[in-house]
Amino acid sequence: MKRDDIPTPALLVDLDRFERNLERMAAHVRRAGKNLRPHAKTHRCPEIARRQIAAGALGVACAKLGEAEVMAAAGIRGLLITTEIVPAAKIERLMRLVEIAPDTMIVVDHLANATEISKAAVAQGRVVHTLVDIEVGGRRTGVAPGAPAVELARAVARLPGLRFRGLQGYAGQCAHVMGWKERRAASHAAMAPLMETRTMVEKAGLPVEIVAGGSTGTHDIDVELPGLTELQAGSYCVMDLDYRRIGGHEGQMLTRFEMALTVVTTVVSVPATDRAMVDGGLKAFSTDKPFPPEAVERPGVEYGFAGDEHGRLTIVDRDRAPQLAERIEFFPPHCDPTINLYDRIYAVRGREVEGVWEIAARGRSD
Amino acid sequence: MKRDDIPTPALLVDLDRFERNLERMAAHVRRAGKNLRPHAKTHRCPEIARRQIAAGALGVACAKLGEAEVMAAAGIRGLLITTEIVPAAKIERLMRLVEIAPDTMIVVDHLANATEISKAAVAQGRVVHTLVDIEVGGRRTGVAPGAPAVELARAVARLPGLRFRGLQGYAGQCAHVMGWKERRAASHAAMAPLMETRTMVEKAGLPVEIVAGGSTGTHDIDVELPGLTELQAGSYCVMDLDYRRIGGHEGQMLTRFEMALTVVTTVVSVPATDRAMVDGGLKAFSTDKPFPPEAVERPGVEYGFAGDEHGRLTIVDRDRAPQLAERIEFFPPHCDPTINLYDRIYAVRGREVEGVWEIAARGRSD
Repeated sequence: MKRDDIPTPALLVDLDRFERNLERMAAHVRRAGKNLRPHAKTHRCPEIARRQIAAGALGVACAKLGEAEVMAAAGIRGLLITTEIVPAAKIERLMRLVEIAPDTMIVVDHLANATEISKAAVAQGRVVHTLVDIEVGGRRTGVAPGAPAVELARAVARLPGLRFRGLQGYAGQCAHVMGWKERRAASHAAMAPLMETRTMVEKAGLPVEIVAGGSTGTHDIDVELPGLTELQAGSYCVMDLDYRRIGGHEGQMLTRFEMALTVVTTVVSVPATDRAMVDGGLKAFSTDKPFPPEAVERPGVEYGFAGDEHGRLTIVDRDRAPQLAERIEFFPPHCDPTINLYDRIYAVRGREVEGVWEIAARGRSD
Repeated sequence: MKRDDIPTPALLVDLDRFERNLERMAAHVRRAGKNLRPHAKTHRCPEIARRQIAAGALGVACAKLGEAEVMAAAGIRGLLITTEIVPAAKIERLMRLVEIAPDTMIVVDHLANATEISKAAVAQGRVVHTLVDIEVGGRRTGVAPGAPAVELARAVARLPGLRFRGLQGYAGQCAHVMGWKERRAASHAAMAPLMETRTMVEKAGLPVEIVAGGSTGTHDIDVELPGLTELQAGSYCVMDLDYRRIGGHEGQMLTRFEMALTVVTTVVSVPATDRAMVDGGLKAFSTDKPFPPEAVERPGVEYGFAGDEHGRLTIVDRDRAPQLAERIEFFPPHCDPTINLYDRIYAVRGREVEGVWEIAARGRSD
């Protein structure tokens, strides 16, 4: 199959760029003396997880139990589920998952939840590896750092069905701070209470084997923290417009990781001299960022959303007006929710399709 | 299965409301002397299409060939594909579709495309039922109304592989105009050139059997046009916040059709007195509207997006602070792209799950 034979709209990963991204992140964490457990919520694709692990990752992080079930069934190990697993029915599913993949780690931020999971584990004769989830300013989940976190860590360590392994702190609010210096200051300020909590937990006599956190935006910032043991960055493998624009240590744009993900569309209508319509709209790109998809090496047009299935190309250079049936690729604004719209990724090298990878955990937010 | 056993986040349709919506639209178009071919891009679900047809619809409209293939395979007939089908590979697929479902209609807005489809049809010994797609101010697809449209209609009528059946004009820009009177004025202004074009085409000697258009927002406006034969409204079957807020003939809110679609979530973290976190974020709701999901009959909280898998509930009434594991349902801002995130819809009546309907055309934008 050739790149030009892929039915549109479709999701493409450029293998040369993708492979360099994996190598660069692997080299980066190796140099920094840290581990990597990349976030699979970005791609939901076992084949990408396998390649990340082959490049040296410990395993993958999953946002949800459903994602982790798919990864485990595909043979992926070293899973960390980064969101709390709450109702009883999900705890039952967690027990079945832990049977398949006993090294799976979970996070907890509430004693009642930790106690319930422990009971279920004891009933099954299992022990669930557990991190305490610490709030580091993102105003999402997590117990408050300091004394409340130490108290929960002690409780986890005492619970017979759990094994306390360490801490997680995800400072999502820092991931996209514009400018590397500004981001560094924000992330170090956010992560300081996590590092202090680590020290406090250790002083309380509990060994802290793992401290997990960080993002693609802070991949070369959070590794400066001696107390952090592993990075959870996800987007680095394929990148997106949002991460590119935040800037890097290297300059105005974050370029260490290359833009490997595109959506290919077809021009389906050329109804006027000022516009052309492509066959990708709200169902082809996520819309959670305040800027549109960007045409890849295709000057002369600007993309605007125009409904579920239409993108409106405003023709800014009439000498380069799109032709009917022309194929145009776009960088998506945000990789994770864009990938989640597709059932498969076409892995391309130049004009060739080398593989079609199933996004097997697509839609598995449950 | 009970409503409370559905793993979250999940998509629910309230059957009582949904059935009333189908009945009300059927009664409305019957009274108006019009036909209904509801847009299946809203739901992408063959079971819903079957129920719409059982309630009197002629068939369903599909935005894309991929959707139509799924509907045809599920036995749905009376299909109209409302977006131009352009590259050669898709025209080949169209020929296979027309073999299964010969009454399928397509739209064209360009002579070259019409000619190519005609050639393919002749080669297969088939005739493809065709509407000419007219631009009615939405700045999407469609040939200009008036003379250019008449010229294309004549060409279609002459092409041996096509059968000219009529016109389509979708005024998407009118669908969500706030206030019924304002919307009526906007839609009548937009649709007037379509009606004039109909007259011109007939004067040119071509019978215009079908004129298709309209939306949920204009369902009781466009039927006033004598020249319109069928309505393409989609969202009416389940509704969403965006359509509710535009107002109806009946008052400040569009209430003729009831809010039948919800996303059920679970509270997975109660980390602070001012907030709670639910397990539905960017991958549970579409984000293309400038307002958030709204909790259903659950005062005291306000939803905000907080990442791929998190919704942040701001607690505005501390006496009604959410409890860990509490289930909270939300009305989505926009039904079509929200449904497209899910593999199935749970059809509920009160506390009972009566069915689990496959969203078989989910992701089939190709």
